[in-house]
Amino acid sequence: MSGVWQLLRPRSVAVVGASADPAKTAGRPVAYLRKHGFEGAIYPVNPKATEIDGLRCYPDVRSLPHAPDVAIVLLGAERTQQAIRELAAIGTGAAIVLASGYSETGAEGARRQRELREAAGAMRILGPNTIGLVNLTDRITLSASGALAADQLVSGPVGLVSQSGGILGALLSRGGARGVGFSKLISTSNEVDLDLADFVDALADDPATRVIALYVESIRNPAAFRAAARKAAKAGKPIVAFKIGRSESGAQAAASHTGALAGTDAMYDALFEETGIIRAQAFSDLLDIPAALASERRLGGRRIAVLTSTGGAGTLVADCLGLAGFDLPAPDARTGAALRTLQTGDHAALDRNPIDVTLAGLQPDLLRGAVRVLLGRGGEDAGGGRRGGRAGGGGEARTGRPPASAGAVRGVSDCPEPGRARARRVSGRTRR
Amino acid sequence: MSGVWQLLRPRSVAVVGASADPAKTAGRPVAYLRKHGFEGAIYPVNPKATEIDGLRCYPDVRSLPHAPDVAIVLLGAERTQQAIRELAAIGTGAAIVLASGYSETGAEGARRQRELREAAGAMRILGPNTIGLVNLTDRITLSASGALAADQLVSGPVGLVSQSGGILGALLSRGGARGVGFSKLISTSNEVDLDLADFVDALADDPATRVIALYVESIRNPAAFRAAARKAAKAGKPIVAFKIGRSESGAQAAASHTGALAGTDAMYDALFEETGIIRAQAFSDLLDIPAALASERRLGGRRIAVLTSTGGAGTLVADCLGLAGFDLPAPDARTGAALRTLQTGDHAALDRNPIDVTLAGLQPDLLRGAVRVLLGRGGEDAGGGRRGGRAGGGGEARTGRPPASAGAVRGVSDCPEPGRARARRVSGRTRR
Repeated sequence: MSGVWQLLRPRSVAVVGASADPAKTAGRPVAYLRKHGFEGAIYPVNPKATEIDGLRCYPDVRSLPHAPDVAIVLLGAERTQQAIRELAAIGTGAAIVLASGYSETGAEGARRQRELREAAGAMRILGPNTIGLVNLTDRITLSASGALAADQLVSGPVGLVSQSGGILGALLSRGGARGVGFSKLISTSNEVDLDLADFVDALADDPATRVIALYVESIRNPAAFRAAARKAAKAGKPIVAFKIGRSESGAQAAASHTGALAGTDAMYDALFEETGIIRAQAFSDLLDIPAALASERRLGGRRIAVLTSTGGAGTLVADCLGLAGFDLPAPDARTGAALRTLQTGDHAALDRNPIDVTLAGLQPDLLRGAVRVLLGRGGEDAGGGRRGGRAGGGGEARTGRPPASAGAVRGVSDCPEPGRARARRVSGRTRR
Repeated sequence: MSGVWQLLRPRSVAVVGASADPAKTAGRPVAYLRKHGFEGAIYPVNPKATEIDGLRCYPDVRSLPHAPDVAIVLLGAERTQQAIRELAAIGTGAAIVLASGYSETGAEGARRQRELREAAGAMRILGPNTIGLVNLTDRITLSASGALAADQLVSGPVGLVSQSGGILGALLSRGGARGVGFSKLISTSNEVDLDLADFVDALADDPATRVIALYVESIRNPAAFRAAARKAAKAGKPIVAFKIGRSESGAQAAASHTGALAGTDAMYDALFEETGIIRAQAFSDLLDIPAALASERRLGGRRIAVLTSTGGAGTLVADCLGLAGFDLPAPDARTGAALRTLQTGDHAALDRNPIDVTLAGLQPDLLRGAVRVLLGRGGEDAGGGRRGGRAGGGGEARTGRPPASAGAVRGVSDCPEPGRARARRVSGRTRR
């Protein structure tokens, strides 16, 4: 088992600096490991306790019964270095360092970070300044993220690597709320040792991961990252990246946050383009595009039929689809004729696209009939619908064909500025 | 009283084609007028009923006791023309025509629309193909929009003119959910007579309207629109416009929807620029920017302090603020020193911006102290905050200075593509 996989799927975990109080940050990892069903050995380490949550507590690292696969170090920066030295000495596989106060805080912190690396020797390090990692596939939580307080964590096909711990927690929480399931979530933060590329590489090998999502503040080793991205592409796993630092203020904040220079934003665009990475332009896309890709229902083309009962909503949707590079061909003569048999009068617009059945579309039979006609039609690659109603819009009627890629069409009525380049990328990808 | 104001604030309303069944579209206007407290006279017109909702029902227009200020015509397109002719003949001030089947349906409909105009003579027409209008200031609902089924309608300072009826309903519903109050909402749709410009002109005179929001598919009379926009500007009422038809598909759909050619999108950009209109790039901005402007708390500059307890969220916010053209100056020496007295250790980033108090910021005293220091500082024009927590972000801590313009900063963690031009426009406006 490689060092990274020993970290992602440990059989034994030491929690150094564990608190007996689960309300404290230092009390969370043990509580979360048990709550979410970790089946390996847990070794709390704390000289002030003999037992934590019914588990035997060890006074120090040297007292551990054997070298753990992983140690979570919850001590302050001052005491972390000594613990790391001891963990490395007993042969611990990898340590997760939560302490902050390293390169993100300036020269003094950078010196401390170099010392941390030296103290670790051959032992792998995740962090420092990290919130840890979560392996939902195997129900292993190696993290103090408050998002793990949730009772139900939904595992799924999206592997996330984030250079921010807070973002990991936010995405874990939001993902659950949106029904997006994760396989692994890893916060790399200061990356004194293991970095983005290491985890992209590992996720490319992970059978539980079908799509990789990245929250990027800076790529420290472009060559390794490029190789890992290519490996993921070869494995058929699309990568979606949200890269911070598009503005000067953001780049400066990113540099402060995890202590690395961010490079120019255009450089990242080029790197993403070269490696086929889909760039998420809005933070919410970092959930929505992977969720759409993970569905593995991909568009075969770019033609979409829109069925609506309110012209305004249909127009909004059509405009956003157009900006995103989709085509809305009018129904052919036969389909138009079939639609017209459903509705008398000439106020409905049935032989164009959006197909507007007007408010009469609130009659379920009419709407069902129109959907049936469109299903039999075969001229489109996807269908989307917009049903008018009391609140002027709402439910979605699908034609049974794959719905348009959520990444391109999500929240179309709120679609942002003409993201042509981005839309092409997404829809191009979905055509493969 | 001008024709437009007779329409916006009638003392008597005839409802032609009123149904006794409030569940039917034709039953709604009478029900809504009474439900929301209209104090004028209501004359239902329907040959098949003698009484509707306790009100005397008239068999036809000629039987009305006197010419109403406004008539809502709920008949199909086939019967509307005759009713319009009769309403005009008795001297009705204005008619609202809900029927569709006019210029939005092609050549035959366009002919019918010309005939409608001739039938109206001197009487003003709103529509056809409209959902009507709502005057929340005076609790007068002249509409069949299902959004009026809500028990509580919040009146406020935003006047909306929409060329789509469905959009009017959607914004009315969403506005209520977001706490945005409207003064008047008018759906102009096919604009056989009264158009966008007429209502912008009227709202410029309306004491209850402080901001004007427009949903635009096409401007049929640019000269009149320009004059009305200038009048609003002179009255100190900013205009925010969401213009559909940015893509070919959207332009085509807009043309189908309300039957007008949309012109090129660049032409609208130029027109908006020239008249100082703020262009909403996302549909949701059509609520958020007016709401922010209506607050009349405007930024005096572009410097913002961001206080965060999670570096990732602070970085996201900083990046979006940077893209929107804001500055995040680091605290000056005195402020930095004052912040450092609040927190020991060197893991917090207190002398830069975002000011990251780390998770220790979850201690209310620390956060309060930091807010107090920033309030006393005077170096920024606005403050924003982001508090970490279980779900990795959440509540907002305000410094007491005006929060940054919601139009520019709303949902910053979901900020879309670099909208520099737009951001400048918004923030430039807020600086006045």
